[in-house]
Amino acid sequence: MKPKHLLADIGNTHFHIYNGTFVEHLSYEEAIEKYSHRKLYYICVKHALNHTIESIALWKNISKAIQLNGAYETMGVDRKALCLSHEEGIFVDAGSAITVDVMQNGQYRGGFIVPGVGAMLQAYAQISPALVTEFNANVSLEHLPTTTKDGISYGIIAPIKTLIDRHRKGQKLYISGGDGKLLSHFFQDAVYDETLVFQGMQKVMKEIEIC
Amino acid sequence: MKPKHLLADIGNTHFHIYNGTFVEHLSYEEAIEKYSHRKLYYICVKHALNHTIESIALWKNISKAIQLNGAYETMGVDRKALCLSHEEGIFVDAGSAITVDVMQNGQYRGGFIVPGVGAMLQAYAQISPALVTEFNANVSLEHLPTTTKDGISYGIIAPIKTLIDRHRKGQKLYISGGDGKLLSHFFQDAVYDETLVFQGMQKVMKEIEIC
Repeated sequence: MKPKHLLADIGNTHFHIYNGTFVEHLSYEEAIEKYSHRKLYYICVKHALNHTIESIALWKNISKAIQLNGAYETMGVDRKALCLSHEEGIFVDAGSAITVDVMQNGQYRGGFIVPGVGAMLQAYAQISPALVTEFNANVSLEHLPTTTKDGISYGIIAPIKTLIDRHRKGQKLYISGGDGKLLSHFFQDAVYDETLVFQGMQKVMKEIEIC
Repeated sequence: MKPKHLLADIGNTHFHIYNGTFVEHLSYEEAIEKYSHRKLYYICVKHALNHTIESIALWKNISKAIQLNGAYETMGVDRKALCLSHEEGIFVDAGSAITVDVMQNGQYRGGFIVPGVGAMLQAYAQISPALVTEFNANVSLEHLPTTTKDGISYGIIAPIKTLIDRHRKGQKLYISGGDGKLLSHFFQDAVYDETLVFQGMQKVMKEIEIC
């Protein structure tokens, strides 16, 4: 279903803009310069930005319309939109934070948050210069690591993977976000799709007859 | 086994000093002021400190004597000493970082590192002001959280707990470190003992006939 208008998910670090064909990731400045003359529906987790963005006449904030059964008050609107993309499953958004949420029969059942891959690497580096390293995307989760670098990469991926697997119970695993592709490689049968949040937005917009 | 001399484990943020009865946690300055006139054997992960400490005549660095079968070159000496405390088991040091190491039959089998509870809270806070919170030590791991605060506390504890449990396979779980007591409450039959590193040091010292 191609949206009539541009859709944007405004996150903590970037604009993610979907034109119905592909998702574009832009800085705030780039997004405003490139699209402020185009009709665009957005959700936004960055409250400090609202004032700047709300002054753009052609852009409409639909955050308040994103309602999810069972969700809690302070749940990020991007997480809600992601969960709305399907009635059932585990929904992972791997960005600056990694959120993991469970949906059953159209109801939100709960979820949790861990720092994203970049934030974790930064956290290690702040503990000690001995823990400064890059992420090894090929780290084996089959064997216990025996180097600092792999001990850190394993420490980033294995805990969250093990916990997600424990919650799966045969349910579909949907993964989105900037590190989503990387994360999806560690799972069996994960659905990586960077349009999931926009699918959730479109469902809501159809219900309230925006598109 | 009471040591004849003071033992010290010099970590990334504190001195931990064991007199055979209890463990004292001091800042670098406090430790040097209080104990520089006393005979003391130490291990040290903070290489930048070596110069200051090595000028203290009564203090002896035994880091090089701490040898662990199967360990890798850059493994922290405190982790090695911890693993040397027993021939078999899972060894967790919950400090500024949380290290998890596996020993079987006196051989090191591998391990991994995650940021400690404080470092994780800081990592969340740096991602977004919406993720600034305190750790809820009473967070339930039985149910999926439905608040941001619990979603974060669960995100700190549940992944690492789930992964440690997966590696246990009936082995004993030994926990040490500043957050060790807190962490041990989330496990069944965990042995929390803040003298484990010193037990490892004492074993080595006995072998090389220092005490």
